[in-house]
Amino acid sequence: MISRLIEKIRQTKAPVVVGLDPNLSFIPSRLLEEAAKKAGAGTPQADPLAIAAEAVWQFNKQIVDAVCDIVPAVKPQIAMYEQFGLPGLAAYDRTVRYCREKGMIVIADVKRGDIGSTSESYAIAHLGRARVGEDLVPAFDADFATVNPYLGTDGIRPFVDVCNAWDKGIFVLVKTSNPSSGEFQDVRTEDGRPLYERVAAKVVEWGEASMDGTYSNVGAVVGATYPEQGRRLRELMPHTFILAPGYGAQGASGRDLAHFFDREGLGCIVNSSRGIIAAWRKPAYASFGEKDFAGASRAAALDMIEDLRSAIEER
Amino acid sequence: MISRLIEKIRQTKAPVVVGLDPNLSFIPSRLLEEAAKKAGAGTPQADPLAIAAEAVWQFNKQIVDAVCDIVPAVKPQIAMYEQFGLPGLAAYDRTVRYCREKGMIVIADVKRGDIGSTSESYAIAHLGRARVGEDLVPAFDADFATVNPYLGTDGIRPFVDVCNAWDKGIFVLVKTSNPSSGEFQDVRTEDGRPLYERVAAKVVEWGEASMDGTYSNVGAVVGATYPEQGRRLRELMPHTFILAPGYGAQGASGRDLAHFFDREGLGCIVNSSRGIIAAWRKPAYASFGEKDFAGASRAAALDMIEDLRSAIEER
Repeated sequence: MISRLIEKIRQTKAPVVVGLDPNLSFIPSRLLEEAAKKAGAGTPQADPLAIAAEAVWQFNKQIVDAVCDIVPAVKPQIAMYEQFGLPGLAAYDRTVRYCREKGMIVIADVKRGDIGSTSESYAIAHLGRARVGEDLVPAFDADFATVNPYLGTDGIRPFVDVCNAWDKGIFVLVKTSNPSSGEFQDVRTEDGRPLYERVAAKVVEWGEASMDGTYSNVGAVVGATYPEQGRRLRELMPHTFILAPGYGAQGASGRDLAHFFDREGLGCIVNSSRGIIAAWRKPAYASFGEKDFAGASRAAALDMIEDLRSAIEER
Repeated sequence: MISRLIEKIRQTKAPVVVGLDPNLSFIPSRLLEEAAKKAGAGTPQADPLAIAAEAVWQFNKQIVDAVCDIVPAVKPQIAMYEQFGLPGLAAYDRTVRYCREKGMIVIADVKRGDIGSTSESYAIAHLGRARVGEDLVPAFDADFATVNPYLGTDGIRPFVDVCNAWDKGIFVLVKTSNPSSGEFQDVRTEDGRPLYERVAAKVVEWGEASMDGTYSNVGAVVGATYPEQGRRLRELMPHTFILAPGYGAQGASGRDLAHFFDREGLGCIVNSSRGIIAAWRKPAYASFGEKDFAGASRAAALDMIEDLRSAIEER
């Protein structure tokens, strides 16, 4: 699977993934009003969760239509859908299917991880197929999923097995983008290394069981907000593809990311969520107006692609 | 919320939670056949995921009916439902609602955890309420949720806020029950302490913001399979309620758990999943037969309660 992502990045010349994290405050009020009307708002049968889910789906669809020819991948954050219950997860499922129909790679940002037998079910849920009698059926059928390593190897191995069985990939959390990520991830261990380097060493080991060309189907999440750690992790994990969140709204720019990439300018894909999907609310893209929010997203994506391109060239 | 759980444990004299992790292999074939018939198996409209979900729901319902008067709480493992997609999650939702109607406390074993803004959505999804226009609506409305600490304080705080807003609780993973939990959790940090003790110290700190009687609404997951660590963690976290998985099928017995409890024999609730819900497949409960699988579950729960009681008395 990682070779497919790399091929798409080569074609688009855009190591960019659009984070589909549709907080309701990012969605133009018109879409919410239309969804409410459709659901018969005010009547007892109008389910607020279904209204939110419909608005989320319409919002996603327009953004996907606007960026699918210039960007290789999307990363829906499932929490944003889970908060709207079953209708929300139906919107998630529809979004995943639509993006794949449009030829985009879908990275399910689910950060699952559990003891072995449970991780197996999560791997089936998001990347594999459930066995029911004679049937093998996909549930939420993404291309990649993000995985939490806190439980160690037996929580990861079922994901790797599913990657090999169904040609999928995972990104394991190594050094996350948030302000408090250092609390445990940066803890110095007795050999002097921070914990995230020990996690990185395991990611390399796990990845050896699922190589796909130069890179492994087992990738790593490394926050764009930590440029020095990213440079070091790039060296420590030469065959590990990096998913880097934290660009834009969380504070990182192209320059911070230059050393997350390999010599060919590959090896990393950078996520931006708010910076792209809520671009219409930013002064820089205000000329698009609320009505053409998707046009603003496309412009913001193009600017991000250019920012990364020049940062890689100027290294 | 933790005071409600403690009250239920006092009433039932059973510090026991039944793990509703309905792997299809635990479900009598009759229930699957009935679900298939109901869905019109063999016809094109028969969705295998819906068949699995219906069987899961019928299985859960009978077990809950059989144990709800002797056990205070259930812990559905959401991965087991997620693997059956939207129908599976509908069965999860129905199970959570049914258990609460029956007066049981529901611990959603979701092991979520992310950067701050995303954790907020997860907290809303499982414990809080989503705001849609003027409405505040619950999504998957459990009493407690399990949470992964790898991202640090800003991934936990939104859960604590939701606990305070809606009188709920969480259990943070400190030392998990699986064989490879030591890989990162036991890593010696430069001050000589294992990582899980540093996580425990943070759990205590987070918990101070949500006290509810002697204990905090912020609890900890400590695997029953690690008795020495459990004893030590009980001392280090005197006001932290412990959720202990790993009893039975994973290998721990009452004796291993004696020191997870406080002086009054409270402060801990022990989970058993397979050992109770799949009891009908074990030689010890074979006399119930496949038909009375729920009776076997009740008998296994009573045996577990007795095992824990005598282990606590004999300390």
